[in-house]
Amino acid sequence: MPLVRISLKKGKPAAWRRAIADSVYDAMIETFNVPKDDRFILIHEHDGDDFTYSPDYLGIQRTDDLILIQLTVSNTRGVEQKQQLYRGIVERLVKAPGLRPEDVFINLVEVLPENWSFGNGVAQYVT
Amino acid sequence: MPLVRISLKKGKPAAWRRAIADSVYDAMIETFNVPKDDRFILIHEHDGDDFTYSPDYLGIQRTDDLILIQLTVSNTRGVEQKQQLYRGIVERLVKAPGLRPEDVFINLVEVLPENWSFGNGVAQYVT
Amino acid sequence: MPLVRISLKKGKPAAWRRAIADSVYDAMIETFNVPKDDRFILIHEHDGDDFTYSPDYLGIQRTDDLILIQLTVSNTRGVEQKQQLYRGIVERLVKAPGLRPEDVFINLVEVLPENWSFGNGVAQYVT
Repeated sequence: MPLVRISLKKGKPAAWRRAIADSVYDAMIETFNVPKDDRFILIHEHDGDDFTYSPDYLGIQRTDDLILIQLTVSNTRGVEQKQQLYRGIVERLVKAPGLRPEDVFINLVEVLPENWSFGNGVAQYVT
Repeated sequence: MPLVRISLKKGKPAAWRRAIADSVYDAMIETFNVPKDDRFILIHEHDGDDFTYSPDYLGIQRTDDLILIQLTVSNTRGVEQKQQLYRGIVERLVKAPGLRPEDVFINLVEVLPENWSFGNGVAQYVT
Repeated sequence: MPLVRISLKKGKPAAWRRAIADSVYDAMIETFNVPKDDRFILIHEHDGDDFTYSPDYLGIQRTDDLILIQLTVSNTRGVEQKQQLYRGIVERLVKAPGLRPEDVFINLVEVLPENWSFGNGVAQYVT
């Protein structure tokens, strides 16, 4: 059920972008109780002038490789599991495509389970 | 007040995309107490490598025609009305532009009525 | 911590878009207790067919210069501060790049402070 938007600066090859989506997906499965095959990941590529970020907010040194990941998820997890997700995403992205840990920004937006329809106009998580 | 983002794979003609926006708008009016003319609908077109989705999560067979609709709305409706919205959106999209029901993914993000300004720097829903 | 997405119709020069981001940033610092250097602002440029809006919802006359600003923020502010933010954003945007007040649409999405990681896989706002 996560709907994931990843924003980055235009110019990365397709393999790099595919690796980012794959790593985020793997981390969600591993750390966030996301069912296998629950994968809906969108990448937004921005012109340089449309992609502005702080190079050092909170003392973290960021580069143009920065990616901003916004995950919309159901509100069914606590703080610890969120921390595991953040760590898991970064660990995976460091391996592939090879991002610096400083260049991974993550934000969660939480919604009710009834706020999803995965097809056919049905709220599949309403029982 | 809904702010609607629709993501799809690049390559669809303008008429197809206009029909999608029109159908979502009509369904919101019909099923979700959205006032006439309250229409703010953005479409994001993604390269194929930037648009990854499960072809069968929850047993629903999806194709490259898939659209992912994320609606930010005020938190003033219950489960039943959300279910009516999902059904209404899909029914409309099947008619125009002619989507398969399986190819419609919907997600709601709910916010407080005070979280909107429709122009002039005023929070129009605060009384 | 705000993650800001700004959507506008394609065709504006880079200087116009940079001025928009700068003005939104300045207004957040001034009115919304956003720390200096906490700047993560993304602009989405849409084809005309992908950018549909009401030209007069709530009696506000909008033009193709319209921008839709969606700010994801922590849920730590009240109504008054939100109203100050809306006013501050519009005042700044009127000065630079020179937008009409009617052409500024704002929406806030609120999340828990634990829902942010600014780098390194750490939830920096969890203490």
